[in-house]
Amino acid sequence: MTILTLLDYAAAIVFAASGAMVASRAQLDIVGFAFIACLTAVGGGTVRDVLLDRNPVFWMGDPMPILLATGVAVLVFFTAHLVESRLRWVVWLDTFALAIAVPAGAGAAMELGHGPVIVVLMGMATGSLGGLMRDVVCNEVPLVLTQGELYISCAMAGAITAVVMVWFGLPAGPALLGCAGVTWVTRAGSLAFGWHLPVYRPRPPRS
Amino acid sequence: MTILTLLDYAAAIVFAASGAMVASRAQLDIVGFAFIACLTAVGGGTVRDVLLDRNPVFWMGDPMPILLATGVAVLVFFTAHLVESRLRWVVWLDTFALAIAVPAGAGAAMELGHGPVIVVLMGMATGSLGGLMRDVVCNEVPLVLTQGELYISCAMAGAITAVVMVWFGLPAGPALLGCAGVTWVTRAGSLAFGWHLPVYRPRPPRS
Amino acid sequence: MTILTLLDYAAAIVFAASGAMVASRAQLDIVGFAFIACLTAVGGGTVRDVLLDRNPVFWMGDPMPILLATGVAVLVFFTAHLVESRLRWVVWLDTFALAIAVPAGAGAAMELGHGPVIVVLMGMATGSLGGLMRDVVCNEVPLVLTQGELYISCAMAGAITAVVMVWFGLPAGPALLGCAGVTWVTRAGSLAFGWHLPVYRPRPPRS
Repeated sequence: MTILTLLDYAAAIVFAASGAMVASRAQLDIVGFAFIACLTAVGGGTVRDVLLDRNPVFWMGDPMPILLATGVAVLVFFTAHLVESRLRWVVWLDTFALAIAVPAGAGAAMELGHGPVIVVLMGMATGSLGGLMRDVVCNEVPLVLTQGELYISCAMAGAITAVVMVWFGLPAGPALLGCAGVTWVTRAGSLAFGWHLPVYRPRPPRS
Repeated sequence: MTILTLLDYAAAIVFAASGAMVASRAQLDIVGFAFIACLTAVGGGTVRDVLLDRNPVFWMGDPMPILLATGVAVLVFFTAHLVESRLRWVVWLDTFALAIAVPAGAGAAMELGHGPVIVVLMGMATGSLGGLMRDVVCNEVPLVLTQGELYISCAMAGAITAVVMVWFGLPAGPALLGCAGVTWVTRAGSLAFGWHLPVYRPRPPRS
Repeated sequence: MTILTLLDYAAAIVFAASGAMVASRAQLDIVGFAFIACLTAVGGGTVRDVLLDRNPVFWMGDPMPILLATGVAVLVFFTAHLVESRLRWVVWLDTFALAIAVPAGAGAAMELGHGPVIVVLMGMATGSLGGLMRDVVCNEVPLVLTQGELYISCAMAGAITAVVMVWFGLPAGPALLGCAGVTWVTRAGSLAFGWHLPVYRPRPPRS
């Protein structure tokens, strides 16, 4: 099992948990939980694989991520009521999923020999699109677009870290670890301490 | 013409009718009707073909499903005002489309020799994603996520039926027929008699 | 550099500007601007390339459209407050992007030898899906579905123009120019003079 496979498994588990938490807010049944969990778990990686023309898509060659996501969904269905604030859980689980999915995306693009722009974009896409699909399908305001919080920026910072570390001659393993670290620290710092970039402030009316 | 082609045609017609009904609720013009009808008609099968790397995508090799969907859209544009309750029609047309699209998806995955997990997932994806795209684009609450109704569960039950029948040695034809039957009966039963799985009931506040 | 590459670059720039304007309405930060700008810029063309199985997807072989879109996003971030009515700008920029993207899509399908139905559909998809993704992700009402305005119809009229001109023996260059012209004139006429097709008028209640 390679490091990329492991990252895909781990992202599937954590994204599935965040997806199942969103399903609990929408009060779906157990199959709905599994559907949203699987969509969130493999959505970003699927777009990555289709764009990179990796065949087969990671969960079609090996359905383990789907089985893991389904298992997590069942677990959350029976335990989510024990949790005090489910929105808080969604948001924090999502930080970990982001920090795992970004290196999974960047690593897959590197392995295929793509240049730095594509590596960064694949990291960002893998990290953000699963959660984006989850939120669009469930009619939640996309986390990706939360005002005054870092999200896509963390994915970009993480992916750029990986590119720079590889450019300085480090092997893929530590570079992806650095990518995960930078992604998580910036995202968690944004949530905990309010770190953010200046947002656009309109002056004339929006019409 | 194979059974899969026939299923794709039939799903295109019925999904197109449901898409055109949603377009009538959004009061679009005739080209908008055709656009939403085509999106609904071929959306799920397109995702299936892209994921399964079937080339070309079914409606690119043979544009008949697009022509059928467009014809249906034109027909609905001129006749939908004759219909009493258009939402009811959307919902019931959708049951038939689901019951045709699930075997179309499961059958395509079987034909390519995929394992049971992928067969079930392709059935579910083909059945639900066209309708999901229709609802997301038209800003309707996705039918897929209706609380206290079976929807994805019917797709899953149908696809599992096909897998089990093939596993017991039955040929693909009857297995796909069984799949369609189980999908439709469970979905129609849910609409007519309120069949449902227990939904998630939160106890603490959602925050 | 071929005419198709040029069209892809131009569409990327103008769609990126419209995407960044929508980001300014959502008050995102600078990375959010770049994300929405890139999604809008390459979304339609990406779907086109995945469906046509063109490998690699245009911006993966040559990341220039991404760099252009990012540059435009940065520019808009620092200048959008100078603009009086941002929604008006979104709508008008979008007319140009549509008029460039439709020939880009139709041309790509022609180059691969596809028939008229697929050429028209690829023109429509490339023209409308980037803007559709922008609006769905940013929770705006999709421009594509605006009541009583031409939008998809302009893409269809333009793409059909290209098909007809090629069928009359004209070379691809003038045909794509004609396509762009018809698309822009019909869309701009709809905005400026209220040109529209009759929309569906329900008689019984929608239920």
